[in-house]
Amino acid sequence: MKLVIEDDADAAGRTVAAIVLGAMLQDRRVNVSLTAGATPVPVYRHLVAALRAHPEAYSNVRFYNFDEVPLSASGPGLTMSALREQLYGPAGLSEDALRILRVDNADEIRADLRDHGGLDLVLMGLGADGHFCANMPGTTRFDADVYTFAIEPTAPWYDEVVAALPPGADTSAGVVTFGLPMILAARRAVLMVTGAGKAATLAAILREPVSTHLPATALRLHPNLVLVADRDAAKEIAP
Amino acid sequence: MKLVIEDDADAAGRTVAAIVLGAMLQDRRVNVSLTAGATPVPVYRHLVAALRAHPEAYSNVRFYNFDEVPLSASGPGLTMSALREQLYGPAGLSEDALRILRVDNADEIRADLRDHGGLDLVLMGLGADGHFCANMPGTTRFDADVYTFAIEPTAPWYDEVVAALPPGADTSAGVVTFGLPMILAARRAVLMVTGAGKAATLAAILREPVSTHLPATALRLHPNLVLVADRDAAKEIAP
Amino acid sequence: MKLVIEDDADAAGRTVAAIVLGAMLQDRRVNVSLTAGATPVPVYRHLVAALRAHPEAYSNVRFYNFDEVPLSASGPGLTMSALREQLYGPAGLSEDALRILRVDNADEIRADLRDHGGLDLVLMGLGADGHFCANMPGTTRFDADVYTFAIEPTAPWYDEVVAALPPGADTSAGVVTFGLPMILAARRAVLMVTGAGKAATLAAILREPVSTHLPATALRLHPNLVLVADRDAAKEIAP
Amino acid sequence: MKLVIEDDADAAGRTVAAIVLGAMLQDRRVNVSLTAGATPVPVYRHLVAALRAHPEAYSNVRFYNFDEVPLSASGPGLTMSALREQLYGPAGLSEDALRILRVDNADEIRADLRDHGGLDLVLMGLGADGHFCANMPGTTRFDADVYTFAIEPTAPWYDEVVAALPPGADTSAGVVTFGLPMILAARRAVLMVTGAGKAATLAAILREPVSTHLPATALRLHPNLVLVADRDAAKEIAP
Repeated sequence: MKLVIEDDADAAGRTVAAIVLGAMLQDRRVNVSLTAGATPVPVYRHLVAALRAHPEAYSNVRFYNFDEVPLSASGPGLTMSALREQLYGPAGLSEDALRILRVDNADEIRADLRDHGGLDLVLMGLGADGHFCANMPGTTRFDADVYTFAIEPTAPWYDEVVAALPPGADTSAGVVTFGLPMILAARRAVLMVTGAGKAATLAAILREPVSTHLPATALRLHPNLVLVADRDAAKEIAP
Repeated sequence: MKLVIEDDADAAGRTVAAIVLGAMLQDRRVNVSLTAGATPVPVYRHLVAALRAHPEAYSNVRFYNFDEVPLSASGPGLTMSALREQLYGPAGLSEDALRILRVDNADEIRADLRDHGGLDLVLMGLGADGHFCANMPGTTRFDADVYTFAIEPTAPWYDEVVAALPPGADTSAGVVTFGLPMILAARRAVLMVTGAGKAATLAAILREPVSTHLPATALRLHPNLVLVADRDAAKEIAP
Repeated sequence: MKLVIEDDADAAGRTVAAIVLGAMLQDRRVNVSLTAGATPVPVYRHLVAALRAHPEAYSNVRFYNFDEVPLSASGPGLTMSALREQLYGPAGLSEDALRILRVDNADEIRADLRDHGGLDLVLMGLGADGHFCANMPGTTRFDADVYTFAIEPTAPWYDEVVAALPPGADTSAGVVTFGLPMILAARRAVLMVTGAGKAATLAAILREPVSTHLPATALRLHPNLVLVADRDAAKEIAP
Repeated sequence: MKLVIEDDADAAGRTVAAIVLGAMLQDRRVNVSLTAGATPVPVYRHLVAALRAHPEAYSNVRFYNFDEVPLSASGPGLTMSALREQLYGPAGLSEDALRILRVDNADEIRADLRDHGGLDLVLMGLGADGHFCANMPGTTRFDADVYTFAIEPTAPWYDEVVAALPPGADTSAGVVTFGLPMILAARRAVLMVTGAGKAATLAAILREPVSTHLPATALRLHPNLVLVADRDAAKEIAP
């Protein structure tokens, strides 16, 4: 693992954007999987500007969402809605550039990635409970490229996830997520962590044994992981 | 994981030899880590013939032993003794081709591999107790590139290991082994399993959850693993 | 360039087969481009046996012919006819495994390869006139991934090519071939040369300046080329 | 080849810096070869800031100069002097990070690169006469990884080169440069071209046949080349 500590979230976002743009600017097909959420907002400012300015220079890139929580039988899910709002829409990406993982096409997306060279880069955030993608404490499987699971009231993360859903969401279809082997197979993995609220979790995933109870501990197994943190998030690991 | 089932150990050896020779025959430095033991004997017949016939064609290859059990304070260890006897000696390899891992140079070997492009290929056998390299039930750590541990009477494998040692062996220095992240970083991993005696273990490592209790379950995390088994070893997974 | 000199064509074929089989035995899609002609016959004995015995183990491989000379408006061409007879048919390959380059789909095949990870391995023979694929003296372009050209009586190779055609062949559609950049982009390139009749050409392509007059001189630009020759072919370079 | 056209040299520099920083920010040894001269000045502002701020995050990078013109028997040469002034000095790089090519160690540097994983990235500018690195019209060889040549009054570039030398320079040792095969073997190649003065040359190297008379035509053979130009330099290719 390589650790880069930046002064603040903006600086961290600039560094992560350089990694992502550098990976995209190649003369071959490039497959990336990016994250939604609050953490990457500073990254997306840079990505949106670059992608809008040079659509043809990035026409070799395909974007795979790495998890999804459907909100109804046929409408858009939580992750794709957020990615469209934060990145794909503002960047002006065409639908051709998107490879959309859903609960009902996990095998197809897995085969699509295998057939097209695999993931070049995956950008992840860190959940306060130690999850990565939708590999959650208690429901994580370490042996599946992609898998689905149900949203059960007994899961440790149930209350938090339900609170994040829009009113009336029908989550009976469960959740789909890339699993550890898919992430380990990506040529590059980037974990971005910002804010004092993540400091204890960040310290824990670097210190604790690899375990499904704290899923992001397993990211230490990646052969080419870069962790970009701001000072607040890194305060327990680099005081 | 790709599975190749061959009729017998000889055929399995021929297939594994093709993978190893193919990986070596490149016009760049190639780093391999091969296994000692009974399983690869049919592989080494082919490797010895090729390496003896064309020493210059394989002069780009460096050989790293992936574990070691010292038998005295300064003499050769169990793994290197076996590799020299089975492969390095008969193949006529020069000392320059060998990178020798010992309990006292684990950090140096790790740095050497990082500085020279990493492992291109690792060939492993499967222990009846589910170990790979010297990642043993009860003493395995999943988060270290290389690590050492003591031979303690409380370990589940203690009796078996001690029975394999020559009389008078001084094993107070412990054992050193490549760990899971080093194996996951290898461009190719090959697991060779032959004989009915390994059938139950092979079935278990493919079926059970990833766990340090059955260390070779974690090989399923490798992004480019080829499992070459003979029919006897595969009888429970491909009846 | 790595040079391997074997005693005879059989031994050369065994070594080349190891490289090809090793490249195919990976747990990801593999794209190969193999050659027709007399030279690889000893290679194909090994490939046919392996592919027939384990169709599922090689189901990840796609086969691209690297050139084609159509013999009529709609029938099979010279290269695919030979590959089907020598390799694809005896090996029992399904049509799904074949990616067929024709004069009318060069752009499509180029895009297909770019979209599916590029060539992993290309196996070539050496023409007595120094050609590789259908990059012929006088008609070679060094700057095109794939290109077509006409069969003109003024070409230095005209008589020889016409003599090799079946009676009544309609070659008005020209020839299509992978060009140098496509070969240079392959992760591995193997050049197999056997027989005393190729000795002078082999010496020339290693000695002369890189030039379209002797197209195979440009193979020296490949970053990972292995040249496998038998003693007869190598007699001028390793007397 | 991928083409990215930016509004001006500053924007081009920002894009190139993202590619270079992205390539460096990996958890493994990275070997880069950067260029001196006026063109990359906007790139180096970004690199200097990043390298100064995070020396440990870039401690995995080794810097190879790709050519050198010695100015005396034992003192520093033209390229290293410029790189130290423009980049290495301001960035605070330690001597350990530098791999210095000289006329008298070409074989050693070639072996060093082969032994340490090869070049990850090479950044080049374009000479008005169509040279890349010190592959000059009239003295270029397309078949050598590294080579030296004399500065002769008969060379087409003689007057220009001599005018660029400091008074009293002793250039009797000649020039050393990486050649085409070394550049083709780099995982990524970036060509940066800015300013109206380069517009005609840029158009020519994209249009003319590959030839040692216009050496940079050969960069089109690279499997992963990104050309970053500003509008002024690109005015003849994207009017």
